[in-house]
Order: sequence, then structure tokens, then C-alpha cells
Amino acid sequence: MLLNKDRLHARMVELQLDAVVATTPENVTYMSGFWAMPQWIRRGPQAYVVWPSPGKGEPEIVTSTATLDLVADQQIWVERVRRYGAFHVDGHPDDAKDPVSQRLLELQEALNHSDALSALVAALTDAGLTRARIGIDEIGLMPGQIDMLKERLPDASLLPAAGLFRHVRAVKTDEEIARLSKVAQIAERSIAAALAVARKGASELDLARAFHAQTVQDDAFPVLGCIGFGERSALMNVQPSDRKLRQGDVIRFDVGGRCRHYRADIARIATFGEPSEEVLRCHRALLAGVERACELIRPGVRVADVFEAAVETVRREGIGHYRRNHVGHGIGIDGYDAPSLTATSDEIIETGMVLCIETPYYQLGRWGLQVEDMVVVQVDGVERLMATSGDLTVLSP
Amino acid sequence: MLLNKDRLHARMVELQLDAVVATTPENVTYMSGFWAMPQWIRRGPQAYVVWPSPGKGEPEIVTSTATLDLVADQQIWVERVRRYGAFHVDGHPDDAKDPVSQRLLELQEALNHSDALSALVAALTDAGLTRARIGIDEIGLMPGQIDMLKERLPDASLLPAAGLFRHVRAVKTDEEIARLSKVAQIAERSIAAALAVARKGASELDLARAFHAQTVQDDAFPVLGCIGFGERSALMNVQPSDRKLRQGDVIRFDVGGRCRHYRADIARIATFGEPSEEVLRCHRALLAGVERACELIRPGVRVADVFEAAVETVRREGIGHYRRNHVGHGIGIDGYDAPSLTATSDEIIETGMVLCIETPYYQLGRWGLQVEDMVVVQVDGVERLMATSGDLTVLSP
Repeated sequence: MLLNKDRLHARMVELQLDAVVATTPENVTYMSGFWAMPQWIRRGPQAYVVWPSPGKGEPEIVTSTATLDLVADQQIWVERVRRYGAFHVDGHPDDAKDPVSQRLLELQEALNHSDALSALVAALTDAGLTRARIGIDEIGLMPGQIDMLKERLPDASLLPAAGLFRHVRAVKTDEEIARLSKVAQIAERSIAAALAVARKGASELDLARAFHAQTVQDDAFPVLGCIGFGERSALMNVQPSDRKLRQGDVIRFDVGGRCRHYRADIARIATFGEPSEEVLRCHRALLAGVERACELIRPGVRVADVFEAAVETVRREGIGHYRRNHVGHGIGIDGYDAPSLTATSDEIIETGMVLCIETPYYQLGRWGLQVEDMVVVQVDGVERLMATSGDLTVLSP
Repeated sequence: MLLNKDRLHARMVELQLDAVVATTPENVTYMSGFWAMPQWIRRGPQAYVVWPSPGKGEPEIVTSTATLDLVADQQIWVERVRRYGAFHVDGHPDDAKDPVSQRLLELQEALNHSDALSALVAALTDAGLTRARIGIDEIGLMPGQIDMLKERLPDASLLPAAGLFRHVRAVKTDEEIARLSKVAQIAERSIAAALAVARKGASELDLARAFHAQTVQDDAFPVLGCIGFGERSALMNVQPSDRKLRQGDVIRFDVGGRCRHYRADIARIATFGEPSEEVLRCHRALLAGVERACELIRPGVRVADVFEAAVETVRREGIGHYRRNHVGHGIGIDGYDAPSLTATSDEIIETGMVLCIETPYYQLGRWGLQVEDMVVVQVDGVERLMATSGDLTVLSP
């Protein structure tokens, strides 16, 4: 299961919540396993998961009739499903013999609500939650919906809960770690595929095509594809262009796709020809910063201490004036999960967190360097999710 | 330019607006050319475009310091840029010699606001809009931000404007039509690439990999990839599985990527071996429905009449009980632009609209059939953006 149920329930007790409602694509999938495509590819379509606290009822998915096939075809651990809106599919029990079609037929027979909000109100009402304290993931609703909900559930206390979901998602389950490990390694293979076409005159776009081709070959979807050469490697969000590879160029990758809904975000550096002394020194310093952070990270450590140690290491090892807002962040079904590794954070590292540890450094007009690894926090320290090291790769022109 | 400036200004006059503010990723890119990656790949990061009515000031982009490289590197027609938040990039004029680095250096020297909303308030204030009627694209803001904005601009009238942007985007500019035409044909080539690997024992996933590989080869990003065999072709949002291709299977594609931010959404049907009489008849009826809609569509025609004609045609030509909520929709930088081709719409077809015309039909447990073409409305009728017809493709096992 993706959901860290114990952590969710503990937080609900702490906040005295009788139920929570997931509304964003990430939280709906996280809570139920249900990937509601329309809300993932556009803003507007609504799907929810209502999750009462233990003993206060059964969890329930609320989604449009037009998405019930995805409910039927996916591995979902929430059994109750409530639908809204019309969608026409012909179906007869004599034809619908396979389990997915059978389940879809069954789902289509349920009572149909007029719209998403009415279905949500009905779900909360049927669960006896009209006077309850309910945490609502406020980010996925459309403007005005929260007020409509308050009007239709006047005796309930509706509290914003995006922060709760972010807190719960910060500590990953085994299934999540397996998915993150897989997608991290897909990103590494995709970098290797891109470097395989890095020859004189190849463009950033040539490398990007090779990168994404490997990503889709491995059943992942392209998301982040910053690939830059030379002076363009210093552009933090560099989008591949027709800039051609030249001897002496730094090549910076800050990349990662999505596989089974989970994200990768890693960075690697290559040079086309021997690197300058300065590039070597700076890269070594940045790598040392990541290594130092990884040495330090274990359950109970303050995130702010990790930040300080990483930045101090980079400064000592070669970039005296190094400055960063953060040296990493959680990653999961969202590309930026908690915690954020900043100087001012009061968060504490916990077992099961999956983190991107990164020390980018940009010299405008010259080059950008970056090491970014994905790691999982174990009881006694970090375990890398990577198959490759952050060492600089030197390509022969 | 992507923006249909005349249509925007006409609507602003009609609604007596002194300015509009774009907030969603789609509308920010549409209004300025600026693709603010973080808001495209996650929910939360904020970028805006403030667009005063003609004579009332200059348009302005509001975005985070961490995205200024994208401003510098993209073809953007809004010159003013206001930034917020810290991001560290080393830069010296002696090094930043290329135009992109130079521009980034210049952008980084501008006054830095503490957060997105403060920057937006400052932009509106500096434009003399504190007592103005301002249309705000309410969907891209985070919960609570609209109330904060009202508090900080107590004399302004802030009106929801997502509908205005949807209205303006419905009639495409030449640049948009060129992009939509390109991405439609990428989808067609990707279907051809998928069919090239359709042999006995190939899986839906095998076809999906070939499909997406072609899409990324053509510099597009995978978005919609519904590819189903046999009974799975009847699942409306079918996600590719390891289901193997068998003789007699229908293969349904409902697919399309994103290229230069513009979306494709097309559908095609193949059969693996000779189709049954019933499949042939139903497919012919669905194709006739699309053809009839295309014959009828021209400027001034009621969308509801197109709906009725398409459904009636499908019924007359072979599926007597055919039912649909819509027979198509606009497409552009969003996958569902206006208009929606429904029975109850009061919208009128206009020159320059780009539409997906579709007549899907699903028989649960048996097969799903669908024809979906992308067309642009010209003065005297529709022009197809497709290189292929909606005819059924018969593959020899």
C-alpha cells in the first residue's frame, strides 16, 4: 500500500479529526491507489477519498462515472466507490465476463449523484460525519467549493489538511520506496542513454530525445528534463535546445520521470573532454557536500544541521562563497515532498523518508555543476537508491 | 503570438475590466509565451501575467527568481518582469556574454519581492490599478490567496476571470493552429509506430512504448495514451497493460501528447484480423457521425446543432440507441478548451476554433470504437489537421 496508514491515524488523533478528505491528484492516489487520470492531466476534474478515523466508518472514493473503468482496472484498497455525472457505456452481464468489465458494470449500477460536491456531501452524511471535525485537503478543490461545502454541512468543522497529507507522505511505505528506487534507476539509465549519443555536434535536443526514449522504454513518463551544455548548463531550469556540443563543455543533467506515479529527481555532470582544474575542484566540493549530508542523515537528526553541514563542506572543499536556499527535499508521489532541507527548518529526519540531496552551483555564462542523489533513511543511516555515483564523467571527444 | 489579443481586448471592454491577471500555467504561457516549469509540473508554485487594458499600462510577468532563466531563454512578448524570492546564481558581466546569460543577469538585478502575492500587489499598484476592475483567473491561486489580495487591494474590484480566459482561448491564432497541427500529426505518426509492432502476442504496453517513443522522437511529451485490445478497448480511459494481442481484437487508440505546450487528442481504430460485420457497421456509423459534424461546422452554426446532427447520423447509420454527452470539444494549450459540443450548449462556432470531433462507443466486455479528428474552423468550413482518415485499419495477423 502507498498510504502510511499508521502515520495518518496518529496524526488524525493528534489533530482530533474524525475524518480527512483527499482532493489533489497526488493525495487521492496516495490514499486509495486510484489514479484518476482526468485530474492528473488537467485542472478542474474532481475526485476525492473520504477517510474516517478508525471505528468511524469505511473509506470511500468519490469520482466521476467517466472514470469508473480506472477504478475497476487498478489495484485499489478502498472498496467503496461513489459516482457522479453521466457517461454512456453499453454493458450486458452476458458480455462483461472478465473481472474488470464485471466490476465496471457493478460500479455503474450505483446511485448517481449530480456533481462532485453533492457526492462528497452524501458520502460524509452517510458516514455520520455531519457534525464531525473533518480535515480537507484544500488545494485540490476549485474556488468556492470549500464555501459551498461549509454551507451544506453547517454543523461540521472543516479544517485545512494539505499540511497533514504532506506530513503523512513524508515517511514512505515499502511499496513507495520500491517505486522510488525503480524510477531513480530509470533516470540513471536515461542519463546513460543520453551520454551514449554525446558526440561533437550533437545537440541538447539530441541528448533529450535519447534520454526520454529510454524513460518511456522503461515504462516511465518524462517530467523533468533539464539538459544543458557549456554556458547553458548554468541555466537552472535549462530546457534542451539546438545548442551543439563542443570540446570542453560541461553537460548538466537535472532530470527524472514518473513511474507508477512516483517521481525521480537526480543530477549528474559530464564533461566533453578533460575538465578544467576549476570545474574539477568545484565538482569535488559539491560532491563532498552531498557525501557529508549523507553521512550525517539518520533518524533524529535536525534537517537544519544537515543543511549547515552540507553548505559548510562545500565551502571548505572549494567554493568559499557557496550559498543555497536548500540542499534537498523529500520526494514521492510529488516531486517536492517534506522535508525541505533548509537552514531554518525545524523538521527532524525520520526512518523511511526518501530524500533528494543536492548541491547545485551555477556560474552564469560559464557552467553549472550539480550532484543530486535519491536516498532512503534507514534506522542506521542512509541507503542510496542510485546505481551510479555522483562522480564527474569525462567523455572523450 | 499565442495570445488572441483582439479577442482579449474586446472581452475586457465588454466586461468593463481595466486589467486581467493570468494565474494558471496554461493562461500564463498563453498570455506571455512564458512557460514557468515549476507550476506546470506541480501544484503550488505561482507565476502570473498582469495585462492592463490598452492605454492603461504595460503587461508584466510576475515569477520567482528561480525561474528567471526560463524568462531569459524563451520567446516571450511581455517585456516587463517582476521577481520574488531568493535563488543563488553566481554571475559576472565579464562571463555572461551570450544573450541569454546577459538577460538573466539583468533580470536578477531587479527589485526582489518577498513572495508571489506581494509582487502581484506591487505590479497592480505600480500600474495604477488599486481602484480598478480586475479580472483574476481564480483557478491558479492557492486557497486563501484571493482573500489576501482583496485585503491588500481594498478599493479594487476583483472578479473571477477563468471564464474570460476560456472564452478568449477558444479562437486560435495562426501560431496556435500551427502548433496544434504539428502535435496532431505527431500523434498520428505515433499511432503508426505503435501499429508497426502490433503482432500476435504483442502487449498493450509494447504498443504504448512504441507510441511514446515516437512522440518523444518528435520532441513532444506523452500525456494521453489510452491503448486497449479486445475487451479492454471498451474501457474508456484504458491504460496499457500486459494484455496480449489476439486474432480478432479491436485496438483502440485515444491518444495525444504535448508539443511546444499544445495538446493533441485523437482516436483511431484497428482490428487484428478481419473485423466482424457488427464492428464494421458500428465503426462506419461512428465515422459517418464525425463526417456529418465536419460537414456542418462553419462559423455561425450552433454547437448544439452539430451535436444533434452527429448523434442522429450515428443512430441512422447503424447504432440506433447511440447516446453521448458530447461529440467533441475545443483543444489548445488545455486538452479541453471551449466550446464543448453538447446538446445544451448555447455556444456558436467561430472561425479559428480548433475542435476535436469524436464519436466514441463502448460495448463493455466486447470492444470500444472511436473516431476523433482535430479540425480548424475556416471561413467556409472545417480544415482537417490530420494526415490520416478515421477509416478502420485492418492488420493481418
